[in-house]
Parts: sequence; C-alpha cells; structure tokens
Amino acid sequence: MKILREQITRRLLRAWAVITLLANLFVLWELPIRLMTGYRPEGAWSTLILTAAGILLTDALSNLMRFRRRREVWQDLITSVPFDLLIPTGLGLPWNLLRCTRLSRITEAIHFQRTLGHWQGRGHLPLAVGRLMRLVFWIFLADHFIAIGWMALDGTAGFMPAQPSFAEPFSRYLTALYWSTATLATVGYGDITARTDPQRLYAILVMLSGVGLFGYVIGDIVNLVANLDQAGAEHRRRLTRLDGFMRSRRFPRPLREKVHAYYDYIWEQKTGPRHEAAFEALPESLRTEISLALHRRGLERVPLFQGLGEDFQREIVQLLEPRIFMPNDVIFREGDPGDALYFVSSGAVEVYSESDPSIESIWLEEGAHFGEIALTGKSARTRSVRTTGFCELYKLSKDVFDLFLAKYPEFKAHIEETLLTRK
Amino acid sequence: MKILREQITRRLLRAWAVITLLANLFVLWELPIRLMTGYRPEGAWSTLILTAAGILLTDALSNLMRFRRRREVWQDLITSVPFDLLIPTGLGLPWNLLRCTRLSRITEAIHFQRTLGHWQGRGHLPLAVGRLMRLVFWIFLADHFIAIGWMALDGTAGFMPAQPSFAEPFSRYLTALYWSTATLATVGYGDITARTDPQRLYAILVMLSGVGLFGYVIGDIVNLVANLDQAGAEHRRRLTRLDGFMRSRRFPRPLREKVHAYYDYIWEQKTGPRHEAAFEALPESLRTEISLALHRRGLERVPLFQGLGEDFQREIVQLLEPRIFMPNDVIFREGDPGDALYFVSSGAVEVYSESDPSIESIWLEEGAHFGEIALTGKSARTRSVRTTGFCELYKLSKDVFDLFLAKYPEFKAHIEETLLTRK
Amino acid sequence: MKILREQITRRLLRAWAVITLLANLFVLWELPIRLMTGYRPEGAWSTLILTAAGILLTDALSNLMRFRRRREVWQDLITSVPFDLLIPTGLGLPWNLLRCTRLSRITEAIHFQRTLGHWQGRGHLPLAVGRLMRLVFWIFLADHFIAIGWMALDGTAGFMPAQPSFAEPFSRYLTALYWSTATLATVGYGDITARTDPQRLYAILVMLSGVGLFGYVIGDIVNLVANLDQAGAEHRRRLTRLDGFMRSRRFPRPLREKVHAYYDYIWEQKTGPRHEAAFEALPESLRTEISLALHRRGLERVPLFQGLGEDFQREIVQLLEPRIFMPNDVIFREGDPGDALYFVSSGAVEVYSESDPSIESIWLEEGAHFGEIALTGKSARTRSVRTTGFCELYKLSKDVFDLFLAKYPEFKAHIEETLLTRK
Amino acid sequence: MKILREQITRRLLRAWAVITLLANLFVLWELPIRLMTGYRPEGAWSTLILTAAGILLTDALSNLMRFRRRREVWQDLITSVPFDLLIPTGLGLPWNLLRCTRLSRITEAIHFQRTLGHWQGRGHLPLAVGRLMRLVFWIFLADHFIAIGWMALDGTAGFMPAQPSFAEPFSRYLTALYWSTATLATVGYGDITARTDPQRLYAILVMLSGVGLFGYVIGDIVNLVANLDQAGAEHRRRLTRLDGFMRSRRFPRPLREKVHAYYDYIWEQKTGPRHEAAFEALPESLRTEISLALHRRGLERVPLFQGLGEDFQREIVQLLEPRIFMPNDVIFREGDPGDALYFVSSGAVEVYSESDPSIESIWLEEGAHFGEIALTGKSARTRSVRTTGFCELYKLSKDVFDLFLAKYPEFKAHIEETLLTRK
Repeated sequence: MKILREQITRRLLRAWAVITLLANLFVLWELPIRLMTGYRPEGAWSTLILTAAGILLTDALSNLMRFRRRREVWQDLITSVPFDLLIPTGLGLPWNLLRCTRLSRITEAIHFQRTLGHWQGRGHLPLAVGRLMRLVFWIFLADHFIAIGWMALDGTAGFMPAQPSFAEPFSRYLTALYWSTATLATVGYGDITARTDPQRLYAILVMLSGVGLFGYVIGDIVNLVANLDQAGAEHRRRLTRLDGFMRSRRFPRPLREKVHAYYDYIWEQKTGPRHEAAFEALPESLRTEISLALHRRGLERVPLFQGLGEDFQREIVQLLEPRIFMPNDVIFREGDPGDALYFVSSGAVEVYSESDPSIESIWLEEGAHFGEIALTGKSARTRSVRTTGFCELYKLSKDVFDLFLAKYPEFKAHIEETLLTRK
Repeated sequence: MKILREQITRRLLRAWAVITLLANLFVLWELPIRLMTGYRPEGAWSTLILTAAGILLTDALSNLMRFRRRREVWQDLITSVPFDLLIPTGLGLPWNLLRCTRLSRITEAIHFQRTLGHWQGRGHLPLAVGRLMRLVFWIFLADHFIAIGWMALDGTAGFMPAQPSFAEPFSRYLTALYWSTATLATVGYGDITARTDPQRLYAILVMLSGVGLFGYVIGDIVNLVANLDQAGAEHRRRLTRLDGFMRSRRFPRPLREKVHAYYDYIWEQKTGPRHEAAFEALPESLRTEISLALHRRGLERVPLFQGLGEDFQREIVQLLEPRIFMPNDVIFREGDPGDALYFVSSGAVEVYSESDPSIESIWLEEGAHFGEIALTGKSARTRSVRTTGFCELYKLSKDVFDLFLAKYPEFKAHIEETLLTRK
Repeated sequence: MKILREQITRRLLRAWAVITLLANLFVLWELPIRLMTGYRPEGAWSTLILTAAGILLTDALSNLMRFRRRREVWQDLITSVPFDLLIPTGLGLPWNLLRCTRLSRITEAIHFQRTLGHWQGRGHLPLAVGRLMRLVFWIFLADHFIAIGWMALDGTAGFMPAQPSFAEPFSRYLTALYWSTATLATVGYGDITARTDPQRLYAILVMLSGVGLFGYVIGDIVNLVANLDQAGAEHRRRLTRLDGFMRSRRFPRPLREKVHAYYDYIWEQKTGPRHEAAFEALPESLRTEISLALHRRGLERVPLFQGLGEDFQREIVQLLEPRIFMPNDVIFREGDPGDALYFVSSGAVEVYSESDPSIESIWLEEGAHFGEIALTGKSARTRSVRTTGFCELYKLSKDVFDLFLAKYPEFKAHIEETLLTRK
Repeated sequence: MKILREQITRRLLRAWAVITLLANLFVLWELPIRLMTGYRPEGAWSTLILTAAGILLTDALSNLMRFRRRREVWQDLITSVPFDLLIPTGLGLPWNLLRCTRLSRITEAIHFQRTLGHWQGRGHLPLAVGRLMRLVFWIFLADHFIAIGWMALDGTAGFMPAQPSFAEPFSRYLTALYWSTATLATVGYGDITARTDPQRLYAILVMLSGVGLFGYVIGDIVNLVANLDQAGAEHRRRLTRLDGFMRSRRFPRPLREKVHAYYDYIWEQKTGPRHEAAFEALPESLRTEISLALHRRGLERVPLFQGLGEDFQREIVQLLEPRIFMPNDVIFREGDPGDALYFVSSGAVEVYSESDPSIESIWLEEGAHFGEIALTGKSARTRSVRTTGFCELYKLSKDVFDLFLAKYPEFKAHIEETLLTRK
C-alpha cells in the first residue's frame, strides 16, 4: 500500500489534498445547518453528504496506515463517520451527542491554513493570494457561524419568504445568513430584527465584536487585492505624488513630461535604481544572485560577457555600475578625464567629435562598449558620446577594472585582445 | 479620406474622442435598463439612442478605413448597430441574442481607461485627476450593474413610488439604484428589502464583495481629493505636527512663531530644502534640469548670471548652494575666515562694521553679491553681514569657485573685472 | 471714528470678531430653515434675528468707514439687511429674490476660515485645534444644507412626531437633519425614507458624494483628537511596539523593565535624543535657538554657565553633547584615557576609586562637573565615576574645549581658575 | 492593622485590587440602570449590590486607616454607602440626591486606568493588552451611558419584547443598549427609532460625536489585536511585499524560494540583522544588554566563551560581528587574505582544500572556531570554508582581536593556548 502511494505523483497528492479540503469545507458548512434545522437530507443531498464522508474516511484510513498510533488520526477517523446521518432520529441524548462529534471537523480550518502555508512556501502560490484565501475563508466561517447562532436563537421565525425557492431549512439558513451579513457589513436593513431579549443580547455581541473584525478583514482583503500588482501600485503612487508636486511648483510642461517618460521607461523595462534597496538586509551571496537576476538580461547582450560561466557573472555583476541616461544626455565630452569603460546594455549611443566636424559619427548599439582607451592609461577622452534615446549602460571604472584583471589573469589576455587592439 | 483626417487638428480629434466616449457611456448606461425593463423608447429618447448609435457607427467606420482588416474594428462596427432598436419585438430567441450584442460595448470601459492614460502621459491632465475620474467611473459602473442585477431579480416589485415622476421604467431603475447605493454605502435604509431567496442570496453577495471595494474606492477618492494640493497638504501636516510638539515641550511663544514664520516663508516662496529629495532617484541630467526649474527665478535676479546661456546656468546651478536665513541672522562676522562668496537671491542684507561704528552700513538687495574679497586670497572678513528679513542667498565656496574659473576661462576675465575691482 | 477704533484694544477687536462670527453662523443656520418652511418668526425669535442683523450691519458700516469703496463691503452691507423679515409676505417674485440675498452670507464661511488662520499664525490657537474647528464647521455646514435640501424635496412629510415639542418648522428641520445625519453617518435607520423619484435621486447623490467625505472628515477629526497630545501619542506607540518586540523575543523581564524605565524617564523629563531630529530642515540660527530652548533648564543648573549672556549660551549649547545614563552606568573607569569634561545637568554621580578602597567616594549633584583633569594634558583617569540614578550629563570633549578657550580668551582665565585649581 | 496588611503578600493585594475593581464596575453598570428604571432590587440581586457596597466600604475604610485625612478617602467612603438601597422610596428630593452620590463612582474609571498603568509598568501585562483593556472599557462605558440617556428620553417605550425573558427593567436596558450599539456601529436596524423631537436631537448628537469615536476605537482595537504578535505581523508583511515584487520582476522560482527560506530561517531562529535598529536611541549600556539578550544563546555555544563572567560577555558581544550565511555559501577561499577568526554559533561548516583534493574535508559544528591562523600574522588562507546549511557565525576581526588581547591580558594566555597551538 505504501509503495502504491509513493508511485502516485505529487500532482495527484495535491489534487487529493484539494478534494479532502473541499469535503471538509462541505461538512463544516452543511452539518451545522442540518443540526440546527433538524432537516433530514434526501436523495441527491444525502448522496453528497455520504460522498464527503466517504472521502474523509478514506483519507483518515490512509493516514492511519501511514502514521500508526497517532491520536489525531483516530480522532479524524471518528469525526469522519456520518453518525448524524446513520443514527435514526428519536433516540436519546447520548446518541445526539455522537452526532455532534463531526462538528470537531472545525479543526480542519487549521488544517486548511497549514495546507495553504505549505503551498506558499514552495512557491506555488503568491503569498498575497494565499493570505487572501485565508482571510476570505475566515470571513465565510465567521459569517456562517454567526448565522447558525441566529438560527439557534430562532431569529428567523416569521421572517421567511412566502414561497421559499430552496428547501425550507436552507431558506431559513439563507435568511439567517442575510441577517448576519447585513449586521457584520453594518448595512443593517432592519427587515429581520431582534425581538426577544436573547436575540438582542446576541445582536449586541455580534455588533461589538464582529463589526470591527469584519471591517478590518475586508480592509485587509481590499488592500491585498489593490496590491496584488505590488510594483505597479508603487509606481503609480510615486508618479501621482511627483506629478502633484511638479504642478504645484509650476514646472514647465516639457520637464514634467521628461520625468513621466523616465518613470514610464524604468517601469516598462523593469529596471532602474531602488530595486536592490529592498534586499539590503539579505546575506551577501543572496544579494549577488538578486543583482544577477535583475541584470542578467542586460549582461547577456554584451558579447564580451557572453558564454562566460555563472561564477564569472556573479563577480562581474558586483563590479559593473548600472546607469540610466535620458535621451540626448552627454555621457562624456572630448577632453574630459577618461576614468571608465562603458557597455551598452540597451538603447544606442552616438560617438561624435565636437572639435572636428569632419569626423563622422559612429552609432553603437546594444552589446557594444566604448571609452576603452581610458583603460590604457591615456587620460583625456578623444571623442564625445551622447545617447540617442533612453539608454542603459554598465559603467566599469578604471580602478575596479585593474583589480579585476589582476584577479582573473586568464580573462586579461582575452579582454586586452578584444578591447584594446580594436581600431 | 486619410488626408482629410490628417488635416483635422489634434484638438478636433480630442473633441471627437470625448464625444464617442460620451456616446459609449450613454449606451452602457441606457441599454441594460432597456433590456431589463422591456421599455420601448419613444420620441426624444429614441432620437438620443439613434444619435449615439450614429456616432459610434461613424467612429467604427472611420477606424475601419484607417486600419483595414483589424478584427476589433469589425467587432466595434457590429456592436454599434442598434439592433435592439431596429428589430421589432416578438421575434424568437436568436433575434433577441442579436440585441444583446451591443452589451459587448462594456469593453469600451477599457477604452475609456486607455484614453485617460494617453491624456495624462501628455500632461494634459494631472495624474490625480485622471485616477479620480477612473475611480468615479468604476464606482458608477459597479453601482449601475448591481442595480441592473437587482431589477433582473425583480427586487423593485412593490416598492415603486405611488406616482412616478419619471417614465415608469426609469423609476424602476432609480429604485433599484437607490437600493444598490444604500447597500454599497452600508446605509441600508431597509425600505426596499430582499423578500425571496434569490434576492437574499444576491444581497449577501453584493454586501460581501461590494461593500469592501466600495469603501476602498471611496477612501481612495477622498484621499485623492484631499491631496490634489499635494504640497499644501504636506505643508499643513508638517506644521501641525511641529506645532503640537513645540507646545508639548512648552517652547516659548516667540520661538514657536519663528518656526511658523519660517515654514510660511518657504511655503509662500515655494523654496527651501527638501524639494530636491523627491527627485534623487532620477538621472543626473534630469536632476540638473529640476534644480534649474526650482532656482531659475533666483538666478535670474543676479546680474552676474543674467544673459548667460542655458548651458552655463546648468553648470552654475550645481555649484551654488542655496541657503535660507532668518531675519537678523548674522551670515558672517568681522574676522571670520573668508571662504565663500554670496549672491542675494531674495531679501536684503546689511554690511556693517562691529569694530568701527563710524563706518556706515551698506544695504544690499536682490542680485547683489558680497564677500568677494575672500576669493582674492585674503582670509579674514573685514565687515560683518546680517540679514534684514527673510533672505535667500546662493553660497559659492572659494574651492568650487577656483575649479569653476579654471573650467570657464572666458568667464574668468569678466568675473574678475566685475567682482574684484569693485571698491 | 478711526481714532476711536484704534483706542479699542486688540482684545476687544478679537471679541468683536467672535461676536460677528456667531451672528453670521446664526444667520447661515436660521435663514435657510425659515425660507424653506415659510415660518414667520415671533417674539424672542425675531428679536434674535434682528440682533444678529444689527451686529452684522454695524460691522459692515464700520468696515465701510475704514475701507471706502471696496465692493465687498457694499455687498456685506446689503446682505446684512434682514429683507426676509422686513418685507411682508404675499408680494411677488422680485421681492422674494431680495429675501434670498442674505443667503450669500455663505461667503462668511470663508471669512471664518481666514479668521481662524490669523489666530493660529499668531500662536493663540494650537494648529490642531484650529483644524479641528474648521472640520467640525464643514461637517455642520454639509449636514445642515443636505437637511435643507431634503426639506425642499418635502422629504419629511408624514414623518413628523405626533406632538412636536419644538415649534413645528423647527421640528421639520430636526426631522430632516435626523435623516441627513443618519444617511451621512451610514446609520440609515430607515424610519424616514425616500418615497418619490426626486427624493430617491437626492438620496443617491447624498450617499455617493456625502458618505465618503463625511467618513474622511470624521476620520480626520478623530485622528486630530487622538493626536492633540502629539508627543504623548508617539511615546505610547513607540513603547507598545518595543514592548511587543521584546516579548516576542523573550527578553528577560528586568531588561524589559529597564527599557520601560528609560522611556518613562525621557518622557517625564521631556528630554532625550530624537527631539532635535524634527528640526533638522530649519536654518542654523533657528536650530540653535531650539537647542537652547530644549536644554536651557539643564544649562542653568551648571554654576559655571550661570549669568553668562544669551550669546555665550548659544555658543556653548552647540559644543556640549547631552547624554543620558541609566542608573549604575559607569561613565569612565580609572586608567581610561581622559578626553572629556562632564557637567551634571540632572541626577547624581559617585566618584570612587577601584584600586584603592580606602579612598572615600564623593557624590556630585546637579551643577557639578568632573573629569576636568583630563583637560590639563594628563591622559589617564585617576578615579572611576558611576551614576546613582538616571543622569543627564553634558559632555565637553578636550578638542572642542581647546578651540572654545581659544575663541573666548576672557572666559579662559575664569574657567582655569574655577576648574583647574580645584583640589 | 498596618502590620497585618504588610504581612499580606503582594499577590493578595493585587487580587484585592481586582475584586474592588469588579465591585466598582458592577456599581457603575447597575446603579444608573436602577436609577433610570426605578427598579427596586430583590433577593439575589440586592445581595449582589450589598456585597459590592461592602467590598467598597471595606476598601475605603482600610484606605482611611492608612492615609488619614486624605479628602479623597472620605469621598470614597461616602460614595460606597448604598444610600440608593437603604433609603426607602417616596421621600423628597434631597434624599433622592443622596442616592445619586454613588454615581460619582465614575471617577473609579480613572482609578481603573491607573491600576492598569501600574501593572504594565511592572511588566505583568504586555502594553498592547493593557491598551486593549482600556479601549474595551471605554467602549463599554460610552455604549452604556448612551443607552442610559436613551432610557431617560423614554426611547424604548413601545419597543419592548412581548414577553421579556429578563426582569422588565433589564429588558428595557437591553433594548436601549441594542439601540445604542446599533447606532454607534452604524448598523442602524431602524426597528427602534426616535419618534419625538428630543429623541431625534439625541440621536443626531450620538451619531455625530459617537460614530467617529466608536469607529476609531474599534479600528484601534482591531489594530492592536492584529499586532499582538508584532514581530510576526512585520515578518508576514515584509515577506508579502518582497514576494509580490519578485513575482512582478519575474525572478526565477529557485531564487524566490531562497529568499523565502532566508526569511523563514531568521524568523524561526529569532535572529538576523534589523533587530538592534529599534534600540538605537537607547543609552549605550542598555544597548549592550540588549545585544547580550539577543546573542547570549549563540555565545554560550562557543566553548571558548563559556563560564566567563557577565562583564566579559558584555565586552565580547560588542566586538563580535554576527553574520548569517545561506547554505553552500563560501565564507573564504584558499589564498584569500586572512583577516578574521570565526566562531560557529549555529549550523555547520566544511573546511576543504580546493588545490589539493587529497586533503580530506573537516566539518565543524556549533561552538567550533576556524580561521585562527589569520591571527598569528600569516596573511593567506590555507583552506576554503563553506557552509553546509544555514549558518550563524560570529566574526572577530584581527584588528579588534589585537586590541582585545591588549585589554584582557589574563585572557590572552588562555586563548593563545587554546587557539594557536591547535593542530
């Protein structure tokens, strides 16, 4: 049996987890309604109940076989038997208590939480979605049990629809749920109201304890939904704030448009500074990997770095300084001190001469590099370089470059050939 | 045809976008009411419907001509035809389905979003106003369709006003919208209530899903409205916080008034530190432009910098250090080491002698400079300088000045003449 | 007349501002009720109206005398005349329009805002209280005019109390206000409901626009009330957060108690670091004054600094480093390098010898100083010093001290006498 | 008597405080109901009242003995006597006023606050729980007195349940409380409504003032409940934010899992950076103690530091730099400059040779140290070290180590023996 189970793939196990979860939820939902209304299920409905009970029994039995002697498993087993259905009505109190055993299935709520937790940990579910499902589950549970309590206090008597379209007990439940939801959401229609002292006491307690928690959870859910697209929400918020500020300071429109263009660019390219800030607290090795994940696309466009091992990329990503330039920004000018080599990660740059207009411009695109003469020792730039559109460059300072070559002598030969003999 | 279109100015195109948008919104609003109530439009009303349909058809046709063979355009075309109006009632199901085709106009909601996005990007609309319009639009749409659902469930039967003042179907719609709004806003008057099982189920679902989102969106709108004047709101919040702090620490009133006066000054002058902090993440060239936008007014008051080119201003704005002084602040005293030149950007200063009262004070106003002797090499100040009111100065350190002159030799001659030969 | 006015003290002017404000508010509140209900005032009530009109007329006249020819003043004058009371009923439309002129008194709401702003700027009112008053005023105004609108739509017909205890028109107003408040606060009792189409439309608009703003303003008010004691609220929040953290990390109780004790101490003494952080953005001279305000009490306890001028205190407060020590903290030990002089600002310290127990301890209290031998050049401490309770010291480093003496030679002689010859 | 009291342990005193508190609360709750309904208590109920009165009298008397002549004590004494019960009904006004004296027990609400404050200060109660209790108390009080006010206005007349299940006066109170709660929570069922002018005025005031404060307090309570597990809430929030960010940036799943694993690790181990950040504002000695509390568990695993005194641990905790490594991180490589000694605080590391595979790896576990050769002066590492799982190490830099040995010469001999002669 154990061997058989092991052959079943993980995927089947997960599907089974979902099925038992649904069976559990069905029991949690249906059982209290039945106990409260005294409704005796018939036909399709009782088939559903027995199916759910069957699934749970199977689960409990298979657990029993795998983990013998665990007390919880026995408990699971007992609470899976649909005593409430099997025992005929009209017997005494002890038999009725036996029926309620299945209510201990409420512990499954915790099981539900744990299952979600596992899936999240393994990256199957975004954390936000997981939290969302849990919150929705708790709201449903609170709403459900408050409705059950209202039924127990006979709060629906006289407020039923004239011709119920569902079976009468479910109509009663629906009515109670309607009252419960209207109360928790502070809508309070007032068509179904408390008319006895215990009902009023119950309503007071529900209002005092439930309303706050309901509001909080709804607020949390809404927040989560709004932030499912976390990065996008932050982008929009920052842009709205900046826009308001620029307008209040009466910035000229072209400048405002430039700022918008910049943020739209870094948003669409999923690039820009700030990204690494959130990861500062992580250990060094993890931070390097994250830098790598953020910049790999850019690095792979530079032929010089292509085909080099993972280890080398880890090293290089820490040395290169990613920088974004606006369209028509001058990166350096003729005569500026040359202190760095640049790689074009995206966009294009124009290399031109200011002093001698007869020299034709050169355009460099993704993967190209420029400014390499700086690395040979000559200090002044011989050409000017400007961007032609948004441009991401990796800057490699001369100082860093020297240390780097000292560390990777095997790379030194290769790079000197490629870089410095170019003409 | 295409040439004709191109001649129409942008402004006309935008007006046309607004008109089709309104036609779309009208269809989205009117069509479901009509389908739900079975109302057959007459007179003015059907003219309105046909006009809207005409506008949408024209738009679809003109799009068809410009972008041939795009499937969306055909879809637009079909959904623009007012089948619902043209087909006589009493025909079978397939004809009725044809009527519903126009409901696919709901995709226009997304079109509306996109149009807003474009306008914002081009700086026509403040971002906050754009977001506001979108949120209001979604609230309207949610409220509208929840009301339509309530009508479909016959939720308004028996709750109609005795003598409707609008056409009866619109009265029904209004009643449903009244219920829907009262539920979403959690007001829940309870005069119109759910009396059948499906209605109660519907109400439960609306309360659970709608209330939270409604609350969130209302909250967001209110926040946006409150922050339309972003900078002002921040100013007031900061001031309130500081005021509370100063009172709890029992600061003497004159000191509290000084702090107020300072914040009022930088608020009214739209100046002060902190302004550049929000822009730190931007590329260097953009940051320079923003500095320029913030300080141009001040720079233009200094005669020395007037009439110099844009390039020069970009350079100078990075060298000058803007500083604000309170009334009666001493900027430097006789005998202090002289390390900087100051330009008066706004306000006035008094140059006086502490050691020799016989020397008369000189008052310097906007555009003047002082402390220039420091730049010749002599180290000690020969006069004291104090402000006479709030004062904004630009400080130019000797070190920075020397580098600057080395870089702009053509400026050196001019500045030496003006600054250093003054007596 | 002008001279007479100038003799009246400011205090009287402010009282007059309050009186006209109250008269304005009364008109704003009473007039729409009267216009809407057609109520004709009698006896005491019409005396009140005439008094208010008199006050406003006087104010408008006196303004007229001071600022001739300002159009606003004429407008004020006209809207002050109680036409609504003076003109007999039963005349035609033009006369009735004249009655409404006084409604333009709503512009006085803006006047109210301005008056509050002036008082705040002069430090009479805490800013938070001012904002509170404004918000309460706007809530009242919104609630009031929504109620007036409801009356105009005849929304109270049939919902009046059986035996009104106020005059009937006021009972009607109260009923409308009751509906308006219940709607805005989302309570929605549903005893007074919309029964006609226009009423339902009105209710929808009130719910959509009013609920959000009401909720926002209530939220703001509550926030302001909670933060009237700004510093206290922050203190409590910080402490709650730290306490939760320490418990979750299972800090031993004595350590938790020490942290509490520290925060309670700095809270009660209104001292501690962080205080100056909020003022960092201010100009230097203002920051010095704030330091002075925070530390003056402490400085005045040190005899060495007593009786020295304001200028000297400004200088010294920037040199001294305030530090807080816990009970039984060792400030320095025998043999430690001596690099600073300390002044006891509050609390007491024990100077004792670790190496030679025969030397008796000395206790130093507020105003005393110790560690002065460090300043003569000898580098090692000859005694240990520890606190006996919470202690605030001012630390004066040797380096800073030397610079200081160089700057204030007149103080040098005095301090050398007092400090270094002590034995 | 005083001696007797002192013999009673603190624990008994605290129990007594709880008992008098309960008696006070009972009086505060029961007395206004009785005064408002004119209910004359019988049997068990009047026994309860007399018991409460007895407890309060005893307390007032014992206070009287300890602090003679304090006016408050006399007041306590008088308000403890159950005049309302002792005086027969039907006497005139003065006697009835005497009954109301006990209402001054409302001052006990402040007493309740103070008692809570004391317990918190002594660390018996988490601060959050204390604030929670206070807020719940104020909600109860507000709700209670608003209900009392509603009874006073006869607001429950005609709305009583047909067959009250509690004594009739308590049924009335319950009905009023039901109205009050439904109003404050903005549920507003509308089954019990205001029908007279004063009731409507009262309802308006309750809605305007109560709703906001109720919402605020409920929000605060919910926040506190959600943050009882402060550190856990922060952990979850940070993780959700990071997860959303990583997904939007399409990080590969293994990397996402690594980040999760890291945060789960530091969460479960209650370790990691950031922890000390919250305590930065504290004095140095307290900060050291907190570091000690956070790291003591780790330090005690290192044999070298075991059994050393508290003073020594204080010293060492400031020198050691705690660092966390991911599984398979390389701590240093052969040939790297050796600049620090490491202690394994938790987890295990593998010491291996890259250049000479014949050398067998050594595994070091908790308490071990490595890299000690660096301290003797030789600069290059002779082995590589990598982690085998999550690992916490304490890093001791050579520079710090040298200073440390200079300071603790008695430790130098011991450590040289243990560390440097190992082979």
